[in-house]
Formats: sequence, structure tokens, C-alpha cells
Amino acid sequence: MDRQKITSELSIETPSKIVLLVLDGLGGLPINGKTALQAAKTPHLDALAARSVCGLTDPVFMGITPGSGPAHLSLFGYDPTKYILGRGILEAMGIGVDVGENDLVARGNFATLTNGLITDRRAGRIPSSENARICEKINRELRTVEETEIALFPGKEHRFVVRFRGEGLSDSLYDADPQKNNKAPISPEAKKEEAERAAKIVNVFMTKTTLLLKDSPKANTVLLRGFSKLPSLPALDNLFHLKPVAVAHYPMYRGFAKLVGMEVADVGPTIEDVFTTAEKIYADYNFFYLHVKKPDAAGEDGCYEEKIKAISEIDTYIPRLLALNPDVLAVTADHSTPCLLKSHSWHPNPFLLHSRTAQQDQVDTFSEIQCASGYLGRFPALNTMPLLMAHAEKLKKYGA
Amino acid sequence: MDRQKITSELSIETPSKIVLLVLDGLGGLPINGKTALQAAKTPHLDALAARSVCGLTDPVFMGITPGSGPAHLSLFGYDPTKYILGRGILEAMGIGVDVGENDLVARGNFATLTNGLITDRRAGRIPSSENARICEKINRELRTVEETEIALFPGKEHRFVVRFRGEGLSDSLYDADPQKNNKAPISPEAKKEEAERAAKIVNVFMTKTTLLLKDSPKANTVLLRGFSKLPSLPALDNLFHLKPVAVAHYPMYRGFAKLVGMEVADVGPTIEDVFTTAEKIYADYNFFYLHVKKPDAAGEDGCYEEKIKAISEIDTYIPRLLALNPDVLAVTADHSTPCLLKSHSWHPNPFLLHSRTAQQDQVDTFSEIQCASGYLGRFPALNTMPLLMAHAEKLKKYGA
Repeated sequence: MDRQKITSELSIETPSKIVLLVLDGLGGLPINGKTALQAAKTPHLDALAARSVCGLTDPVFMGITPGSGPAHLSLFGYDPTKYILGRGILEAMGIGVDVGENDLVARGNFATLTNGLITDRRAGRIPSSENARICEKINRELRTVEETEIALFPGKEHRFVVRFRGEGLSDSLYDADPQKNNKAPISPEAKKEEAERAAKIVNVFMTKTTLLLKDSPKANTVLLRGFSKLPSLPALDNLFHLKPVAVAHYPMYRGFAKLVGMEVADVGPTIEDVFTTAEKIYADYNFFYLHVKKPDAAGEDGCYEEKIKAISEIDTYIPRLLALNPDVLAVTADHSTPCLLKSHSWHPNPFLLHSRTAQQDQVDTFSEIQCASGYLGRFPALNTMPLLMAHAEKLKKYGA
Repeated sequence: MDRQKITSELSIETPSKIVLLVLDGLGGLPINGKTALQAAKTPHLDALAARSVCGLTDPVFMGITPGSGPAHLSLFGYDPTKYILGRGILEAMGIGVDVGENDLVARGNFATLTNGLITDRRAGRIPSSENARICEKINRELRTVEETEIALFPGKEHRFVVRFRGEGLSDSLYDADPQKNNKAPISPEAKKEEAERAAKIVNVFMTKTTLLLKDSPKANTVLLRGFSKLPSLPALDNLFHLKPVAVAHYPMYRGFAKLVGMEVADVGPTIEDVFTTAEKIYADYNFFYLHVKKPDAAGEDGCYEEKIKAISEIDTYIPRLLALNPDVLAVTADHSTPCLLKSHSWHPNPFLLHSRTAQQDQVDTFSEIQCASGYLGRFPALNTMPLLMAHAEKLKKYGA
């Protein structure tokens, strides 16, 4: 059963408006008896929960910790076991690389080559500033390989993204990375015949780069993995007759939003800017994806107090969203990020949906535990889009 | 995983009896703080809930509003995304048309044709009495087309069902309906070669009918859509070794019951008649599908008080069902019909199952919200049949 297809076929265009507020990495585990969400000051979210229908969502399935890619795919109705975002493309989106239809991208490491062996896959974690300097040098001295434009984009420490821009570049390539130290470098190999040309170009790129870097003490070669092209995802506007917009700071989420056919709003750097921007453009769209990164960032750092502070601040803006009077307002997360684990986790996301057409349950506190007794129960995050659409009365009846 | 197949293979014949009481459109949304089910006087259903296991069911999946066809398919174990009931066949069942194995049926509209354009797809919504008169005239003057028997059955206002009875009639036909006013009429076209003959016969029928109606001021042509044949559904008795019977007033549910291999009992017109009939025939079957339409009809009309009254009346007959002492008594709905929306909706169905073999949970009130905290949780309605069968001890162990 293809839920996306069925939902798409039933969808109709209406003026009703949907606001989906995604608090990245919201869910957590208790520290001294309370999760960050429980410890935060959230009078508005709690009052909203009391007038909403609640539940818990699993991004992939129980026990599976999703990356940001699968977690967001699921949230917007794309089965994350069917649609795969390549690591190269996610990394590229994460640092804001412009990726076009024909482009091939990959994640890169600067590495150390000694006597024919990769002796350090991370080149001693060179400073980001040195990374930037090396990328600039390569971009200057190696502009093209066989009419394919080359561009490197520095990330943190030893990491970068390389973009190959040209015709006929397949991404059916094996990683050109031995994965372990003290192994010989690996040439890029085609998985399929159609990728022979891409393999050759990447090979020339790697050889020439290594030559360019030969006098560098640590970062004297490159490893590449996660070759990928822009995935072809059906666009949200076509699928569901929506006029969708993303209000998000981080390049990865802005990039993701573009991939699924959303427009992307200009937004300032603070949490409040997300809400101010939504207010400004509220007349122009009927589906708003608001993304706040802070709870995840604090969770990844294990900063419990920071996470509490971020959630408490977000809570103060809830009345402004309600003042817009959307037909559907949902608050949830893409995945959990417990401070205790300092990483994404498999724990489900608190989910709250407020609408005239929603059942009201007995949940009166927006927390991981309270949401578990909501009327929506525990459900795959993949049901989020059908639920948002249904409550906004944008879905026809299925069958006669 | 084919649940129906697995359940079927495990099923055994036993004398144990199952009563499934379907309160059509039972679930709703609160009006002044209470749903109709919450506002109704239901001491017996509440007492039963306290001694039962409860939950909430989704007919298709979260967010999807089902028609009566998919909702009933799901309830009886037929995946509603796999088994599709054509609109023609549902309409035919809805007005009690006898449909045989070879018959092709379609929904029809009388419409107005002016200067070669369909100017009113509903012929000004002619009175039902005029519709009946026209159908009779056509039935009298156009008995056959190429050895295919023609029969029209009047519905309300401009609607009718046409039945083509003959050999070799495929239903792979596009709708012969422009769907909008001020468009030219559309001839029936075959989707596949095998339907060429059917297309030709339908075409002749439409042309001759239009000729017969040429002096009629409004209803001077016909539009046809939803061509369908009797679907081939595996029969419940074969699937599950049951002796099933339907006790239902409305033609659509009686027709559906026949489609899935149930016998259909004679039943008087009142709600009480459903229960009286069940008592009368209780010795003769071991699976009883009791259907009460009233809550849905009241919901569709937005008559909150009517819905409350219907549910309160149904409650008074619960002791009579319990007095029959069935091995399993389940009370649920096919779909929700909130008075607030005056239509079917996507909200899940309250579900209650009473049996010696059932776990007892803490639910002590039969309502949408209370059922959400039941031991069964929220589950696809497709699990209803396996649950009924299991609690009646009609399923063997799966695997060794």
C-alpha cells in the first residue's frame, strides 16, 4: 500500500492553512527525573496540548535512530525505506552547496598518504582554516577535468564536499575510501557501465589533487565517499496541491525543503526570527514548515540546561502562531536527541495537533510521557502528512 | 504479509458464536464538550466496556476518510487498498439492484443536452417521481441492445443505475460523462480491447435513450460513470469456516453482505427489529453482523440530538444481546460521522470486545476518548476479524 499515492490522489486544493512546527531533536531522556521538555517552562505548549490531539511518532520504525534525512522524509510523507538521500547530497545540503540536476557530489576527507598507504584518514584533523585554504588552492588550480567543472567546499576540520558539474555523470560509484588506516588508497570504480565516465573523471580528479597536495605534510591526498546526485522526489505542491514554504535557518533543512518542492523563506538567525518570518509571509502560502534547530544542537552537545532554555524560549512564541489562526497547527520533532546520549536516538517524537476538526484528548502537558496517552497513540511519522491534510479538510473520501 | 490468508489458514470450525454490532458512523467530535456518544445515555454499553477490552480502529490508515465500501471491507478482513468496490456496484447495492455474475452496472445521471453540449449534468435535479417515470418508459421501450438486457433503476432526483445483462461485458470502460457542464457528451470508450463490445453496447444504449428522451425538456440525455461488475471477493464462510448472517436494513449493507458470502436475514424497519431478528435466528448461524444505520444518518444530517437519541436507544438493547450469551460480542463502527462535519470522517472508531477470553482493561465508559486508553490501543480495522476469531477460539496456533 502506497500511502503517499493514496493521499495524493485524494488531495484537493483549499485555502485552509497548515503550520507544522518542527523542534529538531525535541524528545529526550530524563536527567534527575525530568526530560528537558519536562523541565522546560512551557505553559503555552501545555495549554495548547490540552486543546489538541496528541500522540507519539516513530520516524522509521521502533528502535531505529534516523539521520536527519530519513527523519525529515518521513515527516513529509516520503517512506524513508523507499526514498534514500545519498550521504553526499545531505552533506552538500548541510553546508549550503548549490546542487543542480546534472551535478555529482561526494563527501570528501583530506587524508595522509605515506609510502603508498593511507596512514591517517583525517589528516590529523587539520584546522578548518587550513581546510578552507587547501580547497581554495584546488579550486584555483584544477578548474575542470574533461569539461567537467570541479568545485570543493570546505567543511569542518578535514571534511569537504566536492561537486562535479557536467553532462552524463552517474552516481553509481563505489566509495573511493579504504575506510581504515594503513590500507592502500582505493580508486573510484563504477558499479554499472553507465558510470564508467564518472569513475574516470573522479579518478583523474583524485590523482591530480594528490599531485597538487604532494608537499603538504598531512593533508596530501583525498578520500571520497557517498557519491550522489540530486534525488528525484515528487514535489509536495504537486502531490498535495499545497503552496508550501520552509522557514529554516540551517542549510540542510533549507536544501531538503527545496528537494521536496517547497519555497524557502529568508529568515534571520534567532529562534524568534522563525516566528517573525512566518508572520510576515503568512498570507502567501498555505503550508508552513517551521524548523528550529536549537533543541537538537543542545542535545548533541549534551547541554541539558541549553536544551531546556531553547524549549522554554520557543514556548513564548506559541501564542504568536495561534494568533495567526491556522486551520491546523502541529508541533512535533523529526527525531529525539537525548542529552544523555549526545546523539540522535530511536525514541519517538511528541506530537500535538490543534484544529477545529481534531478530537480533544486528555493530555494536558506536552511531554514525551503525556503524549503516550494521547488519542493518536503511537504511530509512524509517515502518517503526519495525511493527518495534517485531513484535519485541514484537504482530503476527499476514499472509495464510495 | 497477507493477514487474511494467514488468518484463513489458521481458522477452524467451532460452534462458538460471534456477534459483531456495527453502529454506522458512531464516532464524532465534541459539540459543547461532548461527542454524541458521550452525551448519549449508555449505561449498558458503559457497563459492557468495563468488562471488555477496548481500543480505536482506523478503517484505512490515519487521516483517510473511507466511503462505506472500504470501511466495510476493512471490518471484515479485506484490505481496502487491495480490494476495490466500483462505484457502480455500490450504487446498485445501495438501491437494492440484483446484480449477477455477468452483469455490468453503472451509475447514471439524467442530464440536459442543448445544442450539442451538456448544459446541466443533473437535469435540474428533476423530481424522483419523474425519474421513476422516465426509467419505466426506457425499460418498456428499450428492452435489449444486441441480446443484452437493459434495466434502469431509479434513484433520487436525477440519479439512476443501469444494468446490462448479457455475456462478455467487460467493465474496463472510461466514464461516459464530461464531469462538467457546457462540455460535449463523451462516448463510452474501452480501456482494453476486451471491453470493445461493452463500449459498443453502452454506446448504442446511450444513443437510443437520448433519442427516446428527445422531447423531454430537461432530462433529455444520460451520462454514465463507474462501470463495474460484481467483484470477486473470497467468501467469509470459506475463508474462516463460519456460518455468517447479516441483519441489516439498508440495501447497500445487505448487498455488501451478499458480496462477502453472508446470508441476509429478513428484518423489519426499526432499530429494535435488528435485535429481535438476531434473537430469532440465533440458533442458525455462528457469526452475526448486525448493522444499525441511524447514527450515521443523523451524523450526515448534522442532527446531534438525533444521533444521541439513536445511540441511547441502541444501548437499551445491549442486555438482549448479552442474554444470548455469545462467545464474542464486539461493538464498533465502520467509520466516524461527526455532526460537526456532516460527513464521514477520518477519526478512528471506538471498539469494544467482550469475551471470556478477552483481557479486561481500565476503560469503563464506551467513548472515543476512553477507548483510546484501551488495552488494544489504536489499530487498523483490518485486525477486527482476526481478533473476533481469536477470542472465539476459532484460530489455531501459527507455526510450531
